[in-house]
Amino acid sequence: MEGRQAVRELLLAGRRRVREVILASGMDAAPILEDIVDLADEQKVTIREVSRGRFESLARTDAPQGVIAFAAPLPELDIHDVLESPDGRPPFLLLLDGLTDPGNVGAILRSAECAGVTGVVFPRHRAARVTPTVTKAAAGAIEHLRLATVPGLPTALRVLHERGIWTVGLDMAGSTSLYDVQVADGGVALVLGSEGSGLSRLVAERCDVLAHIPMAGTLGSMNAASAAAVSLFEVARRR
Amino acid sequence: MEGRQAVRELLLAGRRRVREVILASGMDAAPILEDIVDLADEQKVTIREVSRGRFESLARTDAPQGVIAFAAPLPELDIHDVLESPDGRPPFLLLLDGLTDPGNVGAILRSAECAGVTGVVFPRHRAARVTPTVTKAAAGAIEHLRLATVPGLPTALRVLHERGIWTVGLDMAGSTSLYDVQVADGGVALVLGSEGSGLSRLVAERCDVLAHIPMAGTLGSMNAASAAAVSLFEVARRR
Repeated sequence: MEGRQAVRELLLAGRRRVREVILASGMDAAPILEDIVDLADEQKVTIREVSRGRFESLARTDAPQGVIAFAAPLPELDIHDVLESPDGRPPFLLLLDGLTDPGNVGAILRSAECAGVTGVVFPRHRAARVTPTVTKAAAGAIEHLRLATVPGLPTALRVLHERGIWTVGLDMAGSTSLYDVQVADGGVALVLGSEGSGLSRLVAERCDVLAHIPMAGTLGSMNAASAAAVSLFEVARRR
Repeated sequence: MEGRQAVRELLLAGRRRVREVILASGMDAAPILEDIVDLADEQKVTIREVSRGRFESLARTDAPQGVIAFAAPLPELDIHDVLESPDGRPPFLLLLDGLTDPGNVGAILRSAECAGVTGVVFPRHRAARVTPTVTKAAAGAIEHLRLATVPGLPTALRVLHERGIWTVGLDMAGSTSLYDVQVADGGVALVLGSEGSGLSRLVAERCDVLAHIPMAGTLGSMNAASAAAVSLFEVARRR
């Protein structure tokens, strides 16, 4: 895991064991770096300072911000692990169908955490994996979110349907305005499609409703992460 | 200007003269490239195909997608040019205070255009300029938006106040929920601060209200472009 916010949240959440924190030498002092050192120290995590050259050779993202952590993997969850929310309230799920840009996926996970999403569902083969770049752009969100992987979204949508969880596909050609979508008492799942081509056909067919964001301008589409943020917070506002 | 969507919108909008369109040789056929060629042809714009090496030497962004256009500069507007909206409805303005990441600024301009913003105000020295990277991330939004530049936002906020335009600063420490903000009949201006430190002090003091996005998770902040999208569409929904 790379990036200052992501590593601080990793240590703050304390959900998985951290093996080692690596810092690039010669960085200017910053409160967030002090937090990272203090938290690692408290949790008896090895802190190692390495030269700039060595640091760059270890980094996997564009801008690791001088901080890398090695941690145990995230818990592997499946769809049944996220059908109920931890606090007993109706679940608020996010399903990602075919998004590929890791910066977008990371920003979406960050918005999802802030909007109170109780579980995220990734299809095993049709979406970006939780890579270092996704993790960094998520700025720590993955430490607080429950992330489930499923073989395919159409089957997952059927499971949600059986559980009475209302599924809302975001689709610019959808017939319902996002502002008119009913949020069911049994829980809600928002389904987001890929940057270029939107929801896949079978996924779109299995959603209870296809909703569009009403637009007032000339352009036909927004950035995928921005559209996700608008949708996530509109659902959050209604809940 | 670089990028397929940005160049297509440039030609579609027809708001400024385009001198030349440059295409990288050897690209796979795509409908959007055909649109660009057809529009350039229709407007008697020179189309030049150059080798990959020559193309890369001309490009100024990370991913120009094989398309560069040279066009007359955008019209230079000041605050008085955006106090009224073109269609006579109350204005919906966006003020950018100190945002520096060009990808974020571009995504914000794209969301702004989609939300129906009638004018964007940049401070001359405290925000990203409309660079090729901003232009590309905006995916054509700058062709449809009116962009004004002012010496400083505090003075601009005073002008808006005198015109009865309600100014809403987005501030995670703001006392009002975004969902409770009143949108005045005289128009509204949303003010966004920088990625790291938010609104500058004088700008925050001059806003009529400081609003926060209610968050349900653990993280303290969202990506700047995602927060902008949520705020822009919430104002749009209320108008």
